[in-house]
Amino acid sequence: MAGPYRDAPASSVHVPHMKWWGWGLEEIRFDPSGKPGFLPFVRAKVGIDLTARADREPPAFDALDVPGSRASTDLAVSLGEITGPENVSTAPRERVIHAYGKGFRDLMRVRDGRFGRPPDIVVYPGSETEVAAVLDLAARQDLVVVPFGGGSNIVGSLEATPDEQRIVVSVDMGRMNRVLHIDAVSGLARVEAGTRGPDLERQLGEAGWTVGHFPDSFTHSTVGGWVATRSSGMQSDKYGDIADITKGLRLARPDGILTVPAMPSTSTGPSLRELILGSEGRLGVITEVTVQVHPIPEHREVRAYLFASWEDGLSAMRAIAHSDLRPTLTRLSDANETAFSLAAGSQRSAMLGRLLKLRGWNEDEVCLSFVGFEGSRGHVATQRRAVARIVRANRGFGLGTKLGELYDRKKFDTPYLRDFFLDHNGIADVSETAAPWSILPGLYRGTYEAAEAAFIELGVHGWIMAHLSHSYRSGACLYFTFAFESPGRPLEAYEVVKRAVQQAFIDGGGTVSHHHGVGVEHAPWLRDHLSRSGHDLLAAIFAEADPGRRLNPGAIIV
Amino acid sequence: MAGPYRDAPASSVHVPHMKWWGWGLEEIRFDPSGKPGFLPFVRAKVGIDLTARADREPPAFDALDVPGSRASTDLAVSLGEITGPENVSTAPRERVIHAYGKGFRDLMRVRDGRFGRPPDIVVYPGSETEVAAVLDLAARQDLVVVPFGGGSNIVGSLEATPDEQRIVVSVDMGRMNRVLHIDAVSGLARVEAGTRGPDLERQLGEAGWTVGHFPDSFTHSTVGGWVATRSSGMQSDKYGDIADITKGLRLARPDGILTVPAMPSTSTGPSLRELILGSEGRLGVITEVTVQVHPIPEHREVRAYLFASWEDGLSAMRAIAHSDLRPTLTRLSDANETAFSLAAGSQRSAMLGRLLKLRGWNEDEVCLSFVGFEGSRGHVATQRRAVARIVRANRGFGLGTKLGELYDRKKFDTPYLRDFFLDHNGIADVSETAAPWSILPGLYRGTYEAAEAAFIELGVHGWIMAHLSHSYRSGACLYFTFAFESPGRPLEAYEVVKRAVQQAFIDGGGTVSHHHGVGVEHAPWLRDHLSRSGHDLLAAIFAEADPGRRLNPGAIIV
Repeated sequence: MAGPYRDAPASSVHVPHMKWWGWGLEEIRFDPSGKPGFLPFVRAKVGIDLTARADREPPAFDALDVPGSRASTDLAVSLGEITGPENVSTAPRERVIHAYGKGFRDLMRVRDGRFGRPPDIVVYPGSETEVAAVLDLAARQDLVVVPFGGGSNIVGSLEATPDEQRIVVSVDMGRMNRVLHIDAVSGLARVEAGTRGPDLERQLGEAGWTVGHFPDSFTHSTVGGWVATRSSGMQSDKYGDIADITKGLRLARPDGILTVPAMPSTSTGPSLRELILGSEGRLGVITEVTVQVHPIPEHREVRAYLFASWEDGLSAMRAIAHSDLRPTLTRLSDANETAFSLAAGSQRSAMLGRLLKLRGWNEDEVCLSFVGFEGSRGHVATQRRAVARIVRANRGFGLGTKLGELYDRKKFDTPYLRDFFLDHNGIADVSETAAPWSILPGLYRGTYEAAEAAFIELGVHGWIMAHLSHSYRSGACLYFTFAFESPGRPLEAYEVVKRAVQQAFIDGGGTVSHHHGVGVEHAPWLRDHLSRSGHDLLAAIFAEADPGRRLNPGAIIV
Repeated sequence: MAGPYRDAPASSVHVPHMKWWGWGLEEIRFDPSGKPGFLPFVRAKVGIDLTARADREPPAFDALDVPGSRASTDLAVSLGEITGPENVSTAPRERVIHAYGKGFRDLMRVRDGRFGRPPDIVVYPGSETEVAAVLDLAARQDLVVVPFGGGSNIVGSLEATPDEQRIVVSVDMGRMNRVLHIDAVSGLARVEAGTRGPDLERQLGEAGWTVGHFPDSFTHSTVGGWVATRSSGMQSDKYGDIADITKGLRLARPDGILTVPAMPSTSTGPSLRELILGSEGRLGVITEVTVQVHPIPEHREVRAYLFASWEDGLSAMRAIAHSDLRPTLTRLSDANETAFSLAAGSQRSAMLGRLLKLRGWNEDEVCLSFVGFEGSRGHVATQRRAVARIVRANRGFGLGTKLGELYDRKKFDTPYLRDFFLDHNGIADVSETAAPWSILPGLYRGTYEAAEAAFIELGVHGWIMAHLSHSYRSGACLYFTFAFESPGRPLEAYEVVKRAVQQAFIDGGGTVSHHHGVGVEHAPWLRDHLSRSGHDLLAAIFAEADPGRRLNPGAIIV
């Protein structure tokens, strides 16, 4: 193709994107300096030498062989008539940025220059009307539409199916980034779907409001992406998952705009709101979300606690969830993650060691916990005292606010560490599940055993660690991180461990995913989770809602 | 038809049913004695003379002309082979009991002996396997299946379409009434779908647990019915709507059992749980529900408060919902309902009159409110004090616990009063909606105006009253009761007012129903509420989930 659209710079210069080969901003990389214990810990425990030459550093972009766009100039012109030509691009860098999310498989493939079926063209609509017009064009020209929020997805929800023969259009929602209206009486805000976390909280914050939704991906993910994947933020204990926070929706569909008015509750048949939540583009493009907002709390603190064992910590977390307390955050690292965190931080103080010795605790079994509080100073004090009583009843003790402040400040940085591992021939990724409290201990052990069996199968050292977070009255999320030195053929090796972990979730009675979504990564386990009848019903719904299979057809159910 | 199935007594003798012509138990009727102010109040304000001869008393059952069953003996035998012959019946009384719910239109028609298209045969399955076998038979023989819980539905979800030519089977779930398992660690209970409120709370209560779900219909409705219509109980402020309480589900579908495992939260695509919630039989028959349960609270109290105006009360309710408090119940009657309640009770004390005079309040504008508290005595005391501060800040004052105790004791009795009105040529019914706080004042006024315009159109005196209940952070439910003396052609007159009220909900930005469901009564407004695209999607889902239109095809979307 030729003409003004050939590699035209898009307005995407105004839409921030993460680095094409990894997480986050170009200028930020994980820096191990100032953490003297970390590299030795990783070498000894995880089995990866992070001091060795970084032999998997990303290639120069120009060295990549990006498959050509199949989009015609006519299509680019047609899209440009909708959004303005400056918001349409077929440039290789644009198409590479929109080819994948940021899962381990995504990063490995993009670093290796393997692009599967990247989008042929990227369009940045500036309004719901423009989104609707793009869908209309897609219907008329039989185009495949893949909605793109912040690109932080890690389950493969952003890639077209490898054998897709039609033109693939990536619809980047990044220009639609405004808070449209705040209903201060009801605590409801109408927000454009492409609004990123920081932009959302900044616009709301100027008026004194917060959503209280802070997923790990917060800095780079969008409201629409949160809804499309059923995101959960680290303060979900108080503010709820995005499924709770989302009160109203607007979804552009080929037959028009589907509106779900913001209602506190409604008894009007099956919930379309909850049908769109988690739909990952299969039903249309989310253009607007009405979210519950809260006044910015007077005071906020995150406190650290230490437990002698995983069992004690678990018991305390459950007691908090079953109380009338409503802390914002409950998090319990297991012994491995506690050791890793203390090594990764610079906080491993001699004092802590003495403290443990004094109590006669086994240093290899202690578990670090964080509990967050928000509200008036009086409310925070009351809640803190009640939590302290629960902690003591479970033989734990408090470490004050210093570690909590550090955790709070660094909470969005973890993904950079994974890129650092990747640079050094490491494989590192995460898998999360949720289950009722009664099931969690067995699910936890089963997942450890499955991962360790996979490590043995691969003949690698291997490391797994976990934390509990997102507590609910009936259960909680378990979040596992696994890492090992690549034995060669990293994608295949990764698959062995990832498959073992996911299967352990199903076998142990957990869910396929608590907040990462399904995409293509988790799709193989969905039938087991939903039952055959449920899986077939969902497949039938997608087929009925999108008979032309143009709406992100690779996601959730292939 | 002939043979052993002809009018065979069913095991329904073990399954309690409400009176065929009205609400509740045969032996209970509304008794105006001991309420000296009530009848004069109703005559003066509502315009109905309840002292006149009850000229609309229900006819004798034997005087009814019940249409014959179209079910063949073969069908009865086939169903009997599934459930045992004692659990199948074509007896007229059985079929009349299962012909309708207890809406105004239902009661009028049943008293007039107008049965539309009653079921041809009633079956009482005793297990999920039997339900599945009934569905299998329905698929093979092209039968229409209408699930029946407690029969308390008031939106027409239980009636077959008038022109249905196929055999209609009412599947009464009343034999499936057991709590199957309590997971005490997670606070989860597996319950058979036909379990009625009192049976549920009794079985759970023996082990120290409660669901905390107490809809007005509690005494007669079932867990499955609550789920199928998205019920909300009067303690929903703390315990949530049934949509929140329901963690897992089992749904018998023609292609097998659809299972939704009980998970605290999950990110596995569109929510099948929230698709089944509110589905009113259109997707299959709910056989089992896993509900969140809570330890029975140490202490429980309901307190009454008085506000000088609706606006003051509304402001207080909103302040409570926006606080960190979590009372179980917030309820605010408007001036009309307050006057009605005080007249209907025997509590209209001279003291209250003096109290109002002392404060200089207009007696015609005062609004009665109830707030409920549960938990440890300390927790209740803390919450009560905080609520008292909010009440005072809105110029209200507390009336103690006596009125609250009375309300709590009498809360399930209101429907009997409607039957009493009906006996005396009165028309009385309820309509409820929900909306964000910012919209509620206008929605409230608009509904009053619409009802009053309808009364004028009909040339009747007419009465409307309302309360706010079920508070959420973003809004609340408004529950309207309207009544007037029938001007003749009561069904047509009723329609005029009901239509005006429902249209006012839509025009005022409210939802079609907060917790009664859609059925056929609210279906005409569903498209406006869900948008055309949403309505079409839902229709497509039902068509895809039930291509033979055998699963309660008249409900929600005709």
